[in-house]
Amino acid sequence: LHAPLNELPRLSADLLERLRTKAPRVHCITNGAAQAFTANMLLAAGAVPSLTIAPDEIAAFTASADALLVNLGTFDAERREAAEMAVKVATEAGRPWVLDPVFIDRSASRAEFAKMLAVCKPAAMRLNCAEFTALADAAPEEDAVKRYARDNLTVIGLTGVADLITDGARSTRIDNGHELMGRVTAMGCAASALAAAFLAVEGDALIATAAALLCFGVAGEMAAHQAAGPGSFAVAILDAIHTLDRRALVERARVS
Amino acid sequence: LHAPLNELPRLSADLLERLRTKAPRVHCITNGAAQAFTANMLLAAGAVPSLTIAPDEIAAFTASADALLVNLGTFDAERREAAEMAVKVATEAGRPWVLDPVFIDRSASRAEFAKMLAVCKPAAMRLNCAEFTALADAAPEEDAVKRYARDNLTVIGLTGVADLITDGARSTRIDNGHELMGRVTAMGCAASALAAAFLAVEGDALIATAAALLCFGVAGEMAAHQAAGPGSFAVAILDAIHTLDRRALVERARVS
Amino acid sequence: LHAPLNELPRLSADLLERLRTKAPRVHCITNGAAQAFTANMLLAAGAVPSLTIAPDEIAAFTASADALLVNLGTFDAERREAAEMAVKVATEAGRPWVLDPVFIDRSASRAEFAKMLAVCKPAAMRLNCAEFTALADAAPEEDAVKRYARDNLTVIGLTGVADLITDGARSTRIDNGHELMGRVTAMGCAASALAAAFLAVEGDALIATAAALLCFGVAGEMAAHQAAGPGSFAVAILDAIHTLDRRALVERARVS
Repeated sequence: LHAPLNELPRLSADLLERLRTKAPRVHCITNGAAQAFTANMLLAAGAVPSLTIAPDEIAAFTASADALLVNLGTFDAERREAAEMAVKVATEAGRPWVLDPVFIDRSASRAEFAKMLAVCKPAAMRLNCAEFTALADAAPEEDAVKRYARDNLTVIGLTGVADLITDGARSTRIDNGHELMGRVTAMGCAASALAAAFLAVEGDALIATAAALLCFGVAGEMAAHQAAGPGSFAVAILDAIHTLDRRALVERARVS
Repeated sequence: LHAPLNELPRLSADLLERLRTKAPRVHCITNGAAQAFTANMLLAAGAVPSLTIAPDEIAAFTASADALLVNLGTFDAERREAAEMAVKVATEAGRPWVLDPVFIDRSASRAEFAKMLAVCKPAAMRLNCAEFTALADAAPEEDAVKRYARDNLTVIGLTGVADLITDGARSTRIDNGHELMGRVTAMGCAASALAAAFLAVEGDALIATAAALLCFGVAGEMAAHQAAGPGSFAVAILDAIHTLDRRALVERARVS
Repeated sequence: LHAPLNELPRLSADLLERLRTKAPRVHCITNGAAQAFTANMLLAAGAVPSLTIAPDEIAAFTASADALLVNLGTFDAERREAAEMAVKVATEAGRPWVLDPVFIDRSASRAEFAKMLAVCKPAAMRLNCAEFTALADAAPEEDAVKRYARDNLTVIGLTGVADLITDGARSTRIDNGHELMGRVTAMGCAASALAAAFLAVEGDALIATAAALLCFGVAGEMAAHQAAGPGSFAVAILDAIHTLDRRALVERARVS
């Protein structure tokens, strides 16, 4: 591991503390199914979410936010317009933004829109293997993912059984998480929002994204210990993010 | 009971297993309040939900889905257009679809739209007594419900203290469920989505609908045993659907 | 305390009983992130929520409701139009309505819209200090809040660490609640919805609003006792509202 990735668990604990102290504002353009859970994940972590997509408000909300999330789930015309305006405002203001190209493997028009946004320099993108393939027109192999990150000057957080986080030059793999994460809607969306919150308090986008996904994965494991199924898991992961501490991060992290 | 309805508990267990193995895609056009809970119910049962209503995506999502849900809650112009396109695509592709005419007793324009959709041959409709009356212009008595199902070549799942499921020729009654179901939003919506998931793996629409409602009712009873109120009930029913097994279905089923 | 505010805990218990018996319909124009939680809070309390914003339905739903909530979160053009129509219908029908000017401190256009609605005589407004300042162009001090309520012929429920409820002539302060309330999205929105439900069964708007906020605060304290974090807190407060009784209200109320 490149330094400082070998220190990721401790760095993640530092960033989580910073997030709780600074309470950054994260504006989220996200899908209807994900809005409440995403807002609750951000609040549980210590950030302040806002969610409007109204054209005459999006600039004001984005300009006064510390980071932006653009999630393409249930994407309609109004969200599309909001996303374009918000990305423009965030870019001009030098605010980091995260792209989550939900389900672009299921819709050609959404994939096209994602490709258009991807060249607008998001600080990070979080996606799964099918979404990466649709975005990059390439199989989700490590080399292809690194190349895509390098070519697009971004950080890729490719999540699945294991997570790969790379900026092309530096990479890390996180083996935390739990299969119940795949049984709750908006889990990936919430992870992307968390990445945006970490980016609001840390300028190294690779570290911020990796720290967010590590915290999310460890919280997921802790939640799974208490859960009787996906319903109680979704509740417990919010509690776990809220109470997550340095010791749990250092003890449970499986980073390579 | 006509065969195979006398075997409903065992058949329901078979179908639930099939659902978990096949993981069918269910596209849901549903209301904002129901999106997250509906998606979570489908994921807990083993299906894969999608939720977009964007006009340029709805055809692609519906065509690649194994079943469709059209729920009329919080119905706006965009959802209306999406519903018409999706029903057309599903019909052409031979995919089963379910109509849930939420609250049509409260809005004449919504009732009219539901009547228009009802003649497009949904595989099943799930509704309550007030909604049936608004749809069929008839009191929700057993004979009227059977006649409506027969006339419209559909299956009616009329839910309430007891559920009546009928295709006009064959009928069954399910006495499972719990009163806390009436204290959580989107419970009926989630039941309709579950019916769509079962229809994706079983061609006999009466059996599929009855099996879905039996699983839902039994899960609701199991959830009520652990719940301290409607908040914990909504969590517990997701856990219960996820862990529901043959033994619980056979032991708890109250079918006649 | 003016009578009958010195009897607020007992009055609140009476109103909660009345609410459970009458099951008033509350139509909610509210933001996407808040819809499900708001509906679940109303159902847990005993009311019947509806949520549509479709232009051709809003009049029918509002006219057949017993109270109306207008919440300005994630406000788009369709919600804006719906709000104006609904307020008109509610006013003509003599139905009480509640304004919740969410995040108007973050958007000038939303603040302007809130000011326009505020002169349409809502029975009550629930807001936080930043929102009051944006609405009234005044610091959220007790005298300014009272003056604003008096000038606008409304009740203000200013919530925070302590809640101030005033109609300008009469005032009360409630010290119940818990800090976890600030870590769950839509908590304030749900409190406003509860105020609308209480207004549906009690004509004295000050008493209704104060009773709703007292029930909400006491339920929040009870929920916090059982919660391990914001996820389980959001579940537990729904259970607590559902099971809240006279004894808990009288014992726990901190009203002055």
